[in-house]
Amino acid sequence: MEPSQEQIADGLRGVHDHITTFLTEADGNACHEDQWTYDKGSGGGVTRIWEHSDLIERGGVNFSAIHGDSLPTAAATQFNIPEGTPYFATGVSLVVHPWNPHVPTIHMNVRHFSAGDVWWFGGGIDLTPVYPVKQQIIGFHQALRDLCKVHGQDYAKHKTECDDYFLIRHRGETRGVGGLFFDHMRDDRVKDFAFIEALGKAFPDLYRPIVEASRAESHTDAERDFQLYRRSRYVEFNLVYDRGTLFGLQSNGRIESILMSMPAEARWRYDWHPEPGTREAELTDFYLKPQDWCAMTD
Amino acid sequence: MEPSQEQIADGLRGVHDHITTFLTEADGNACHEDQWTYDKGSGGGVTRIWEHSDLIERGGVNFSAIHGDSLPTAAATQFNIPEGTPYFATGVSLVVHPWNPHVPTIHMNVRHFSAGDVWWFGGGIDLTPVYPVKQQIIGFHQALRDLCKVHGQDYAKHKTECDDYFLIRHRGETRGVGGLFFDHMRDDRVKDFAFIEALGKAFPDLYRPIVEASRAESHTDAERDFQLYRRSRYVEFNLVYDRGTLFGLQSNGRIESILMSMPAEARWRYDWHPEPGTREAELTDFYLKPQDWCAMTD
Repeated sequence: MEPSQEQIADGLRGVHDHITTFLTEADGNACHEDQWTYDKGSGGGVTRIWEHSDLIERGGVNFSAIHGDSLPTAAATQFNIPEGTPYFATGVSLVVHPWNPHVPTIHMNVRHFSAGDVWWFGGGIDLTPVYPVKQQIIGFHQALRDLCKVHGQDYAKHKTECDDYFLIRHRGETRGVGGLFFDHMRDDRVKDFAFIEALGKAFPDLYRPIVEASRAESHTDAERDFQLYRRSRYVEFNLVYDRGTLFGLQSNGRIESILMSMPAEARWRYDWHPEPGTREAELTDFYLKPQDWCAMTD
Repeated sequence: MEPSQEQIADGLRGVHDHITTFLTEADGNACHEDQWTYDKGSGGGVTRIWEHSDLIERGGVNFSAIHGDSLPTAAATQFNIPEGTPYFATGVSLVVHPWNPHVPTIHMNVRHFSAGDVWWFGGGIDLTPVYPVKQQIIGFHQALRDLCKVHGQDYAKHKTECDDYFLIRHRGETRGVGGLFFDHMRDDRVKDFAFIEALGKAFPDLYRPIVEASRAESHTDAERDFQLYRRSRYVEFNLVYDRGTLFGLQSNGRIESILMSMPAEARWRYDWHPEPGTREAELTDFYLKPQDWCAMTD
Protein backbone atom coordinates (compact mmCIF):
# COMPACT_ATOMS: atom_id res chain seq x y z
CA MET A 1 0.00 0.00 0.00
CA GLU A 2 1.27 3.48 -0.81
CA PRO A 3 2.61 5.29 2.23
CA SER A 4 0.67 8.41 3.28
CA GLN A 5 2.34 11.75 4.05
CA GLU A 6 2.05 10.90 7.74
CA GLN A 7 3.66 7.49 7.23
CA ILE A 8 6.54 9.03 5.31
CA ALA A 9 7.07 11.68 8.02
CA ASP A 10 6.89 8.99 10.70
CA GLY A 11 9.45 6.90 8.83
CA LEU A 12 11.82 9.87 8.61
CA ARG A 13 11.25 10.69 12.28
CA GLY A 14 12.46 7.13 12.91
CA VAL A 15 15.54 7.81 10.76
CA HIS A 16 16.18 11.01 12.75
CA ASP A 17 16.06 9.14 16.06
CA HIS A 18 18.15 6.26 14.72
CA ILE A 19 20.91 8.64 13.60
CA THR A 20 20.69 10.63 16.83
CA THR A 21 21.27 7.44 18.83
CA PHE A 22 24.29 6.57 16.72
CA LEU A 23 25.84 10.06 16.87
CA THR A 24 25.26 10.23 20.63
CA GLU A 25 27.12 6.95 21.07
CA ALA A 26 29.89 7.90 18.66
CA ASP A 27 30.43 11.30 20.24
CA GLY A 28 29.84 10.15 23.79
CA ASN A 29 27.66 13.15 24.66
CA ALA A 30 24.01 14.11 24.33
CA CYS A 31 23.06 16.65 21.69
CA HIS A 32 21.49 20.05 22.17
CA GLU A 33 17.89 19.84 20.87
CA ASP A 34 15.61 22.60 19.60
CA GLN A 35 12.05 22.10 18.44
CA TRP A 36 10.54 24.72 16.16
CA THR A 37 7.22 25.32 14.48
CA TYR A 38 6.69 26.52 10.92
CA ASP A 39 5.02 29.89 11.16
CA LYS A 40 3.93 30.09 7.51
CA GLY A 41 1.81 26.93 7.69
CA SER A 42 1.70 24.00 10.10
CA GLY A 43 4.23 21.47 11.29
CA GLY A 44 7.82 22.20 12.18
CA GLY A 45 11.03 20.44 12.98
CA VAL A 46 13.61 19.25 15.45
CA THR A 47 17.27 20.31 15.28
CA ARG A 48 19.83 18.23 17.18
CA ILE A 49 23.35 19.62 17.31
CA TRP A 50 26.73 18.87 18.87
CA GLU A 51 29.17 21.77 19.14
CA HIS A 52 32.69 21.60 20.56
CA SER A 53 31.91 18.11 21.74
CA ASP A 54 34.24 15.08 21.93
CA LEU A 55 34.20 13.58 18.44
CA ILE A 56 32.21 16.34 16.76
CA GLU A 57 33.54 19.86 16.44
CA ARG A 58 30.24 20.96 14.89
CA GLY A 59 27.46 18.86 13.44
CA GLY A 60 23.98 17.56 13.89
CA VAL A 61 20.86 16.15 12.38
CA ASN A 62 17.64 17.97 11.47
CA PHE A 63 14.13 16.63 10.97
CA SER A 64 11.27 18.66 9.55
CA ALA A 65 7.75 18.04 8.29
CA ILE A 66 5.82 21.09 7.17
CA HIS A 67 2.49 21.78 5.50
CA GLY A 68 2.39 25.02 3.52
CA ASP A 69 -0.89 26.68 2.55
CA SER A 70 0.31 27.95 -0.76
CA LEU A 71 3.32 27.05 -2.88
CA PRO A 72 5.59 30.07 -3.56
CA THR A 73 5.41 31.44 -7.12
CA ALA A 74 8.97 30.46 -8.06
CA ALA A 75 8.49 26.83 -7.04
CA ALA A 76 5.02 26.65 -8.65
CA THR A 77 6.40 27.95 -11.95
CA GLN A 78 9.44 25.67 -11.88
CA PHE A 79 7.41 22.51 -11.36
CA ASN A 80 4.35 23.55 -13.35
CA ILE A 81 2.06 23.30 -10.33
CA PRO A 82 -0.88 25.75 -10.03
CA GLU A 83 0.14 28.69 -7.87
CA GLY A 84 -1.39 28.55 -4.42
CA THR A 85 -1.47 24.74 -4.23
CA PRO A 86 -0.97 23.49 -0.66
CA TYR A 87 2.21 21.46 -0.25
CA PHE A 88 3.94 19.08 2.12
CA ALA A 89 7.68 18.67 2.64
CA THR A 90 9.51 16.40 5.04
CA GLY A 91 13.14 15.42 5.37
CA VAL A 92 16.14 14.54 7.46
CA SER A 93 19.51 16.23 6.90
CA LEU A 94 22.78 15.84 8.69
CA VAL A 95 26.30 17.20 8.58
CA VAL A 96 29.13 16.11 10.88
CA HIS A 97 32.43 18.01 11.02
CA PRO A 98 34.70 16.04 13.40
CA TRP A 99 37.61 17.68 15.23
CA ASN A 100 40.15 15.16 14.04
CA PRO A 101 41.49 15.94 10.55
CA HIS A 102 41.72 12.18 9.96
CA VAL A 103 37.96 11.67 10.40
CA PRO A 104 36.08 12.77 7.27
CA THR A 105 33.18 15.21 7.28
CA ILE A 106 29.95 13.55 6.18
CA HIS A 107 26.63 14.84 4.87
CA MET A 108 23.34 13.04 4.27
CA ASN A 109 19.87 14.17 3.29
CA VAL A 110 16.64 12.30 2.54
CA ARG A 111 13.42 14.13 1.71
CA HIS A 112 9.93 13.95 0.25
CA PHE A 113 7.83 16.68 -1.36
CA SER A 114 4.26 16.68 -2.56
CA ALA A 115 1.87 19.33 -3.92
CA GLY A 116 -1.39 18.35 -5.59
CA ASP A 117 -0.67 15.47 -7.96
CA VAL A 118 3.07 16.15 -7.99
CA TRP A 119 5.43 14.36 -5.61
CA TRP A 120 9.01 13.22 -5.46
CA PHE A 121 11.76 11.87 -3.25
CA GLY A 122 15.30 13.18 -3.12
CA GLY A 123 18.48 12.95 -1.15
CA GLY A 124 21.96 11.60 -1.03
CA ILE A 125 25.04 11.05 1.05
CA ASP A 126 28.63 12.16 0.51
CA LEU A 127 31.95 12.02 2.28
CA THR A 128 34.52 14.85 2.56
CA PRO A 129 37.85 13.60 3.88
CA VAL A 130 40.81 15.90 4.54
CA TYR A 131 43.34 13.04 4.77
CA PRO A 132 41.61 10.32 2.76
CA VAL A 133 42.24 6.62 3.27
CA LYS A 134 41.53 4.90 -0.01
CA GLN A 135 40.26 1.61 1.47
CA GLN A 136 37.68 3.53 3.52
CA ILE A 137 36.39 5.31 0.44
CA ILE A 138 36.20 2.10 -1.57
CA GLY A 139 34.32 0.46 1.30
CA PHE A 140 31.91 3.42 1.55
CA HIS A 141 31.12 3.33 -2.17
CA GLN A 142 30.81 -0.46 -2.26
CA ALA A 143 28.33 -0.34 0.61
CA LEU A 144 26.32 2.29 -1.27
CA ARG A 145 26.43 0.19 -4.44
CA ASP A 146 25.13 -2.83 -2.50
CA LEU A 147 22.37 -0.77 -0.87
CA CYS A 148 21.29 0.53 -4.29
CA LYS A 149 21.19 -3.02 -5.64
CA VAL A 150 18.91 -4.26 -2.88
CA HIS A 151 16.50 -1.40 -3.62
CA GLY A 152 16.59 -1.60 -7.42
CA GLN A 153 18.44 1.71 -7.64
CA ASP A 154 21.06 2.65 -10.21
CA TYR A 155 24.23 3.24 -8.17
CA ALA A 156 26.24 4.42 -11.18
CA LYS A 157 23.66 7.09 -12.04
CA HIS A 158 23.33 8.39 -8.46
CA LYS A 159 27.13 8.32 -8.04
CA THR A 160 27.68 10.36 -11.21
CA GLU A 161 24.97 12.83 -10.20
CA CYS A 162 26.75 13.22 -6.86
CA ASP A 163 30.09 13.98 -8.55
CA ASP A 164 28.33 16.50 -10.81
CA TYR A 165 26.34 18.15 -8.02
CA PHE A 166 29.16 18.54 -5.49
CA LEU A 167 31.52 20.19 -7.96
CA ILE A 168 33.05 23.46 -6.73
CA ARG A 169 33.06 24.90 -10.24
CA HIS A 170 35.26 27.94 -9.56
CA ARG A 171 37.93 25.65 -8.07
CA GLY A 172 37.60 22.81 -10.57
CA GLU A 173 37.44 20.25 -7.78
CA THR A 174 34.71 18.20 -6.09
CA ARG A 175 33.71 18.95 -2.50
CA GLY A 176 34.75 15.48 -1.42
CA VAL A 177 34.90 11.91 -2.67
CA GLY A 178 31.19 11.73 -3.49
CA GLY A 179 28.61 9.09 -2.76
CA LEU A 180 25.01 9.25 -3.97
CA PHE A 181 22.79 12.13 -5.09
CA PHE A 182 19.26 11.96 -6.52
CA ASP A 183 16.43 14.44 -6.89
CA HIS A 184 12.87 14.43 -8.27
CA MET A 185 12.81 10.64 -7.97
CA ARG A 186 9.30 9.52 -8.79
CA ASP A 187 9.33 5.92 -9.83
CA ASP A 188 7.08 4.24 -7.32
CA ARG A 189 6.04 5.70 -4.00
CA VAL A 190 6.54 2.42 -2.11
CA LYS A 191 9.92 1.60 -3.63
CA ASP A 192 11.30 5.16 -3.48
CA PHE A 193 10.29 5.63 0.14
CA ALA A 194 11.74 2.24 1.09
CA PHE A 195 15.03 3.33 -0.46
CA ILE A 196 15.38 6.68 1.27
CA GLU A 197 14.32 5.17 4.60
CA ALA A 198 16.88 2.38 4.15
CA LEU A 199 19.58 4.90 3.24
CA GLY A 200 18.80 6.89 6.38
CA LYS A 201 18.82 3.75 8.53
CA ALA A 202 22.07 2.59 6.94
CA PHE A 203 23.89 5.78 7.96
CA PRO A 204 25.44 4.39 11.17
CA ASP A 205 26.79 1.35 9.30
CA LEU A 206 28.22 3.58 6.57
CA TYR A 207 29.98 6.08 8.83
CA ARG A 208 30.88 3.95 11.89
CA PRO A 209 33.71 1.95 10.28
CA ILE A 210 35.29 5.15 8.98
CA VAL A 211 35.05 6.87 12.35
CA GLU A 212 36.33 3.86 14.26
CA ALA A 213 39.29 3.38 11.92
CA SER A 214 40.46 6.98 12.13
CA ARG A 215 39.31 8.59 15.39
CA ALA A 216 42.28 7.48 17.45
CA GLU A 217 44.81 8.76 14.96
CA SER A 218 46.90 11.67 16.22
CA HIS A 219 47.50 14.74 14.11
CA THR A 220 49.95 17.60 13.87
CA ASP A 221 49.16 21.32 14.10
CA ALA A 222 49.89 21.54 10.37
CA GLU A 223 47.27 18.87 9.67
CA ARG A 224 44.70 20.74 11.78
CA ASP A 225 45.57 23.92 9.89
CA PHE A 226 45.10 22.16 6.56
CA GLN A 227 41.74 20.83 7.77
CA LEU A 228 40.59 24.38 8.59
CA TYR A 229 41.81 25.55 5.18
CA ARG A 230 39.85 22.78 3.48
CA ARG A 231 36.78 23.74 5.50
CA SER A 232 36.69 27.03 3.62
CA ARG A 233 36.02 25.00 0.45
CA TYR A 234 33.05 23.40 2.20
CA VAL A 235 31.78 26.89 3.03
CA GLU A 236 32.32 28.05 -0.56
CA PHE A 237 30.32 25.12 -1.93
CA ASN A 238 27.45 25.40 0.52
CA LEU A 239 27.00 29.17 0.26
CA VAL A 240 27.60 29.55 -3.48
CA TYR A 241 26.08 26.39 -4.97
CA ASP A 242 24.07 24.22 -2.58
CA ARG A 243 20.43 24.37 -3.71
CA GLY A 244 19.02 23.34 -0.34
CA THR A 245 21.00 26.01 1.51
CA LEU A 246 20.13 28.77 -0.95
CA PHE A 247 16.45 27.76 -1.09
CA GLY A 248 16.36 27.77 2.71
CA LEU A 249 17.96 31.21 2.96
CA GLN A 250 15.69 32.68 0.28
CA SER A 251 12.51 31.16 1.70
CA ASN A 252 13.09 32.42 5.24
CA GLY A 253 13.63 28.95 6.62
CA ARG A 254 15.06 28.54 10.13
CA ILE A 255 18.51 30.02 9.49
CA GLU A 256 20.32 28.32 12.36
CA SER A 257 19.07 24.88 11.27
CA ILE A 258 20.03 25.53 7.64
CA LEU A 259 23.48 26.86 8.51
CA MET A 260 24.17 23.98 10.89
CA SER A 261 26.07 22.69 7.85
CA MET A 262 28.77 25.35 8.33
CA PRO A 263 31.96 24.25 10.08
CA ALA A 264 32.85 25.79 13.44
CA GLU A 265 35.90 27.36 11.84
CA ALA A 266 37.23 27.95 8.33
CA ARG A 267 40.43 29.57 7.04
CA TRP A 268 41.36 31.18 3.75
CA ARG A 269 44.93 31.54 2.46
CA TYR A 270 45.91 33.45 -0.66
CA ASP A 271 46.91 31.27 -3.60
CA TRP A 272 48.26 28.51 -1.41
CA HIS A 273 49.39 25.24 -2.96
CA PRO A 274 50.72 22.19 -1.13
CA GLU A 275 54.13 20.75 -1.97
CA PRO A 276 53.90 18.21 -4.81
CA GLY A 277 53.92 14.64 -3.58
CA THR A 278 52.45 15.38 -0.15
CA ARG A 279 49.14 13.98 1.11
CA GLU A 280 47.76 17.52 0.91
CA ALA A 281 48.61 17.67 -2.81
CA GLU A 282 47.26 14.18 -3.42
CA LEU A 283 43.90 15.26 -2.02
CA THR A 284 43.18 17.63 -4.93
CA ASP A 285 45.26 15.80 -7.54
CA PHE A 286 43.52 12.47 -7.07
CA TYR A 287 40.72 12.33 -4.51
CA LEU A 288 38.82 15.46 -5.50
CA LYS A 289 38.27 14.25 -9.04
CA PRO A 290 35.52 11.77 -9.93
CA GLN A 291 36.90 8.23 -9.61
CA ASP A 292 35.42 4.77 -10.13
CA TRP A 293 35.95 3.81 -6.50
CA CYS A 294 34.08 0.49 -6.67
CA ALA A 295 36.40 -0.75 -9.42
CA MET A 296 39.48 -0.22 -7.25
CA THR A 297 40.91 -2.88 -5.04
CA ASP A 298 43.62 -0.90 -3.24
CA MET B 1 37.52 66.62 -22.67
CA GLU B 2 36.06 63.17 -22.14
CA PRO B 3 38.55 60.70 -20.69
CA SER B 4 39.46 57.78 -22.95
CA GLN B 5 39.49 54.17 -21.76
CA GLU B 6 43.26 54.44 -21.38
CA GLN B 7 42.98 57.62 -19.32
CA ILE B 8 40.42 56.02 -17.04
CA ALA B 9 42.60 52.93 -16.59
CA ASP B 10 45.64 55.15 -15.93
CA GLY B 11 43.68 57.12 -13.37
CA LEU B 12 42.66 53.94 -11.56
CA ARG B 13 46.21 52.63 -11.73
CA GLY B 14 47.12 55.81 -9.88
CA VAL B 15 44.43 55.08 -7.29
CA HIS B 16 45.83 51.55 -6.92
CA ASP B 17 49.34 52.86 -6.26
CA HIS B 18 48.08 55.59 -3.93
CA ILE B 19 46.20 53.06 -1.79
CA THR B 20 49.12 50.63 -1.87
CA THR B 21 51.43 53.34 -0.49
CA PHE B 22 48.98 54.10 2.30
CA LEU B 23 48.39 50.46 3.26
CA THR B 24 52.13 49.76 3.19
CA GLU B 25 52.71 52.65 5.59
CA ALA B 26 49.78 51.73 7.80
CA ASP B 27 50.75 48.07 8.00
CA GLY B 28 54.48 48.69 8.12
CA ASN B 29 55.27 45.93 5.62
CA ALA B 30 55.41 45.55 1.85
CA CYS B 31 52.64 43.62 0.14
CA HIS B 32 52.90 40.45 -1.87
CA GLU B 33 52.25 41.34 -5.52
CA ASP B 34 51.00 39.17 -8.37
CA GLN B 35 50.52 40.34 -11.93
CA TRP B 36 48.17 38.37 -14.15
CA THR B 37 46.99 38.51 -17.74
CA TYR B 38 43.45 37.99 -18.96
CA ASP B 39 43.48 34.88 -21.10
CA LYS B 40 40.07 35.44 -22.71
CA GLY B 41 41.06 38.79 -24.25
CA SER B 42 43.83 41.29 -23.55
CA GLY B 43 44.92 43.20 -20.50
CA GLY B 44 45.10 41.86 -16.98
CA GLY B 45 45.59 42.97 -13.43
CA VAL B 46 47.74 43.39 -10.38
CA THR B 47 46.84 41.87 -7.00
CA ARG B 48 48.55 43.23 -3.89
CA ILE B 49 47.91 41.39 -0.67
CA TRP B 50 48.97 41.40 2.98
CA GLU B 51 48.45 38.20 4.93
CA HIS B 52 49.27 37.64 8.60
CA SER B 53 51.04 40.97 8.58
CA ASP B 54 51.25 43.58 11.35
CA LEU B 55 48.05 45.61 11.07
CA ILE B 56 46.38 43.48 8.44
CA GLU B 57 45.35 39.90 9.13
CA ARG B 58 44.23 39.53 5.51
CA GLY B 59 43.55 42.18 2.92
CA GLY B 60 44.75 43.85 -0.20
CA VAL B 61 43.98 45.92 -3.23
CA ASN B 62 43.37 44.75 -6.79
CA PHE B 63 43.64 46.61 -10.08
CA SER B 64 42.45 45.25 -13.39
CA ALA B 65 41.88 46.55 -16.91
CA ILE B 66 40.69 44.03 -19.46
CA HIS B 67 39.51 44.10 -23.05
CA GLY B 68 37.15 41.27 -23.98
CA ASP B 69 36.52 40.30 -27.57
CA SER B 70 32.91 39.43 -27.11
CA LEU B 71 30.46 40.23 -24.33
CA PRO B 72 29.01 37.07 -22.72
CA THR B 73 25.36 36.35 -23.64
CA ALA B 74 23.99 36.93 -20.14
CA ALA B 75 25.57 40.38 -19.87
CA ALA B 76 24.60 41.31 -23.42
CA THR B 77 20.97 40.39 -22.77
CA GLN B 78 20.85 42.16 -19.42
CA PHE B 79 22.14 45.45 -20.79
CA ASN B 80 20.57 45.21 -24.23
CA ILE B 81 23.93 45.29 -26.00
CA PRO B 82 24.37 43.27 -29.23
CA GLU B 83 25.89 39.89 -28.42
CA GLY B 84 29.54 39.67 -29.40
CA THR B 85 30.27 43.38 -28.79
CA PRO B 86 33.85 43.95 -27.60
CA TYR B 87 33.99 45.41 -24.09
CA PHE B 88 36.35 47.09 -21.68
CA ALA B 89 36.30 46.86 -17.90
CA THR B 90 38.66 48.44 -15.39
CA GLY B 91 38.52 48.83 -11.64
CA VAL B 92 40.18 48.94 -8.26
CA SER B 93 38.84 46.91 -5.34
CA LEU B 94 40.10 46.54 -1.83
CA VAL B 95 39.23 44.75 1.38
CA VAL B 96 41.16 45.05 4.64
CA HIS B 97 40.50 42.73 7.58
CA PRO B 98 42.73 43.95 10.44
CA TRP B 99 43.81 41.65 13.28
CA ASN B 100 42.58 43.97 16.00
CA PRO B 101 38.85 43.58 16.70
CA HIS B 102 38.76 47.31 17.45
CA VAL B 103 39.87 48.26 13.92
CA PRO B 104 36.96 47.94 11.46
CA THR B 105 37.11 45.95 8.24
CA ILE B 106 36.79 48.19 5.20
CA HIS B 107 35.87 47.60 1.56
CA MET B 108 36.08 49.91 -1.43
CA ASN B 109 35.54 49.46 -5.15
CA VAL B 110 35.59 51.85 -8.11
CA ARG B 111 35.05 50.65 -11.66
CA HIS B 112 34.23 51.55 -15.24
CA PHE B 113 32.63 49.45 -17.95
CA SER B 114 32.05 50.16 -21.63
CA ALA B 115 30.77 48.12 -24.59
CA GLY B 116 29.81 49.82 -27.85
CA ASP B 117 27.77 52.92 -26.99
CA VAL B 118 27.03 51.73 -23.46
CA TRP B 119 29.19 52.75 -20.53
CA TRP B 120 28.90 53.32 -16.82
CA PHE B 121 30.80 53.89 -13.61
CA GLY B 122 30.16 52.09 -10.37
CA GLY B 123 31.60 51.55 -6.94
CA GLY B 124 31.33 52.35 -3.31
CA ILE B 125 32.93 52.14 0.09
CA ASP B 126 31.65 50.65 3.33
CA LEU B 127 32.85 50.04 6.85
CA THR B 128 32.32 46.89 8.94
CA PRO B 129 33.24 47.43 12.58
CA VAL B 130 33.10 44.67 15.19
CA TYR B 131 33.30 47.07 18.15
CA PRO B 132 31.98 50.29 16.62
CA VAL B 133 32.89 53.75 17.91
CA LYS B 134 30.03 56.06 17.03
CA GLN B 135 32.12 59.20 16.53
CA GLN B 136 34.30 57.36 14.00
CA ILE B 137 31.25 56.27 12.01
CA ILE B 138 29.77 59.76 12.06
CA GLY B 139 33.10 61.17 10.90
CA PHE B 140 33.34 58.58 8.11
CA HIS B 141 29.85 59.36 6.82
CA GLN B 142 30.32 63.12 7.11
CA ALA B 143 33.52 62.89 5.08
CA LEU B 144 31.65 60.89 2.42
CA ARG B 145 28.82 63.45 2.43
CA ASP B 146 31.35 66.26 1.92
CA LEU B 147 33.11 64.38 -0.87
CA CYS B 148 29.78 63.80 -2.62
CA LYS B 149 28.94 67.50 -2.34
CA VAL B 150 32.20 68.59 -3.97
CA HIS B 151 31.48 66.25 -6.89
CA GLY B 152 27.79 67.04 -7.30
CA GLN B 153 26.80 63.58 -6.08
CA ASP B 154 23.73 62.71 -4.03
CA TYR B 155 25.13 61.36 -0.74
CA ALA B 156 21.69 60.41 0.60
CA LYS B 157 20.92 58.32 -2.46
CA HIS B 158 24.27 56.52 -2.50
CA LYS B 159 24.10 56.00 1.27
CA THR B 160 20.63 54.42 1.05
CA GLU B 161 21.72 52.22 -1.85
CA CYS B 162 24.65 51.06 0.29
CA ASP B 163 22.35 50.11 3.19
CA ASP B 164 20.08 48.25 0.75
CA TYR B 165 22.90 46.48 -1.06
CA PHE B 166 24.85 45.32 1.99
CA LEU B 167 21.83 43.77 3.67
CA ILE B 168 22.33 40.16 4.82
CA ARG B 169 18.70 39.31 4.08
CA HIS B 170 18.59 35.94 5.83
CA ARG B 171 19.91 37.56 9.03
CA GLY B 172 17.92 40.78 8.81
CA GLU B 173 21.02 42.87 9.47
CA THR B 174 23.39 44.97 7.38
CA ARG B 175 26.97 43.80 6.80
CA GLY B 176 28.32 46.87 8.51
CA VAL B 177 27.56 50.55 9.04
CA GLY B 178 27.40 51.35 5.34
CA GLY B 179 28.90 54.18 3.35
CA LEU B 180 28.27 54.72 -0.37
CA PHE B 181 27.16 52.39 -3.16
CA PHE B 182 26.37 53.28 -6.78
CA ASP B 183 26.12 51.31 -9.99
CA HIS B 184 25.35 52.06 -13.66
CA MET B 185 26.18 55.71 -13.06
CA ARG B 186 26.11 57.43 -16.42
CA ASP B 187 25.58 61.12 -15.93
CA ASP B 188 28.64 62.67 -17.50
CA ARG B 189 31.86 60.86 -18.29
CA VAL B 190 34.07 63.69 -16.99
CA LYS B 191 32.15 64.25 -13.78
CA ASP B 192 31.58 60.56 -13.01
CA PHE B 193 35.21 59.67 -13.56
CA ALA B 194 36.38 62.60 -11.46
CA PHE B 195 34.16 61.33 -8.64
CA ILE B 196 35.32 57.72 -8.61
CA GLU B 197 38.95 58.81 -8.91
CA ALA B 198 38.49 61.25 -6.03
CA LEU B 199 36.81 58.57 -3.93
CA GLY B 200 39.72 56.23 -4.58
CA LYS B 201 42.26 58.94 -3.74
CA ALA B 202 40.34 59.88 -0.60
CA PHE B 203 40.60 56.35 0.78
CA PRO B 204 43.66 56.99 2.98
CA ASP B 205 42.03 60.06 4.53
CA LEU B 206 38.83 58.12 5.17
CA TYR B 207 40.42 55.07 6.81
CA ARG B 208 43.55 56.54 8.46
CA PRO B 209 41.78 58.36 11.32
CA ILE B 210 39.80 55.23 12.17
CA VAL B 211 42.90 53.02 12.13
CA GLU B 212 44.96 55.50 14.13
CA ALA B 213 42.27 55.92 16.78
CA SER B 214 41.79 52.21 17.36
CA ARG B 215 44.93 50.29 16.43
CA ALA B 216 46.63 50.61 19.82
CA GLU B 217 43.60 49.41 21.74
CA SER B 218 44.10 46.09 23.47
CA HIS B 219 41.52 43.35 23.26
CA THR B 220 40.48 40.25 25.16
CA ASP B 221 40.33 36.69 23.82
CA ALA B 222 36.54 36.96 23.98
CA GLU B 223 36.66 40.05 21.75
CA ARG B 224 38.86 38.25 19.25
CA ASP B 225 36.45 35.32 19.29
CA PHE B 226 33.50 37.64 18.66
CA GLN B 227 35.41 39.22 15.76
CA LEU B 228 35.92 35.78 14.18
CA TYR B 229 32.24 35.00 14.71
CA ARG B 230 31.26 38.28 12.99
CA ARG B 231 33.61 37.42 10.12
CA SER B 232 31.34 34.51 9.25
CA ARG B 233 28.64 37.10 8.48
CA TYR B 234 31.05 38.79 6.07
CA VAL B 235 31.59 35.41 4.39
CA GLU B 236 27.84 34.79 4.22
CA PHE B 237 27.22 38.16 2.55
CA ASN B 238 30.05 37.87 0.04
CA LEU B 239 29.35 34.29 -1.03
CA VAL B 240 25.54 34.44 -1.04
CA TYR B 241 24.77 37.98 -2.22
CA ASP B 242 27.73 39.98 -3.52
CA ARG B 243 27.21 40.52 -7.25
CA GLY B 244 30.87 41.18 -7.98
CA THR B 245 31.99 38.01 -6.22
CA LEU B 246 29.35 35.81 -7.85
CA PHE B 247 29.95 37.34 -11.31
CA GLY B 248 33.67 36.73 -10.85
CA LEU B 249 33.19 33.11 -9.82
CA GLN B 250 30.74 32.43 -12.65
CA SER B 251 32.87 34.11 -15.31
CA ASN B 252 36.05 32.23 -14.45
CA GLY B 253 37.79 35.32 -13.17
CA ARG B 254 41.04 34.96 -11.22
CA ILE B 255 39.64 33.15 -8.17
CA GLU B 256 42.37 34.10 -5.72
CA SER B 257 41.99 37.82 -6.55
CA ILE B 258 38.19 37.63 -6.22
CA LEU B 259 38.30 35.72 -2.95
CA MET B 260 40.90 38.05 -1.47
CA SER B 261 37.80 39.54 0.16
CA MET B 262 37.46 36.49 2.43
CA PRO B 263 38.80 36.85 5.99
CA ALA B 264 41.74 34.68 7.08
CA GLU B 265 39.45 32.99 9.57
CA ALA B 266 35.73 32.77 10.30
CA ARG B 267 33.74 30.97 12.96
CA TRP B 268 30.13 29.79 13.16
CA ARG B 269 28.25 29.17 16.41
CA TYR B 270 24.78 27.67 16.63
CA ASP B 271 22.03 30.11 17.54
CA TRP B 272 24.33 32.28 19.61
CA HIS B 273 23.08 35.58 21.02
CA PRO B 274 25.07 38.08 23.06
CA GLU B 275 23.90 39.14 26.51
CA PRO B 276 21.51 42.11 26.29
CA GLY B 277 23.19 45.41 27.06
CA THR B 278 26.69 44.32 25.98
CA ARG B 279 28.65 45.95 23.16
CA GLU B 280 28.19 42.70 21.22
CA ALA B 281 24.40 43.04 21.50
CA GLU B 282 24.50 46.75 20.65
CA LEU B 283 26.27 45.92 17.38
CA THR B 284 23.23 44.17 15.90
CA ASP B 285 20.58 46.09 17.86
CA PHE B 286 21.78 49.52 16.75
CA TYR B 287 24.76 49.64 14.40
CA LEU B 288 23.68 46.99 11.90
CA LYS B 289 20.47 48.80 11.05
CA PRO B 290 20.39 51.75 8.64
CA GLN B 291 20.97 54.97 10.61
CA ASP B 292 21.18 58.63 9.66
CA TRP B 293 24.77 58.92 10.85
CA CYS B 294 25.35 62.44 9.53
CA ALA B 295 22.45 63.77 11.61
CA MET B 296 23.99 62.47 14.83
CA THR B 297 26.29 64.52 16.98
CA ASP B 298 27.33 61.90 19.54
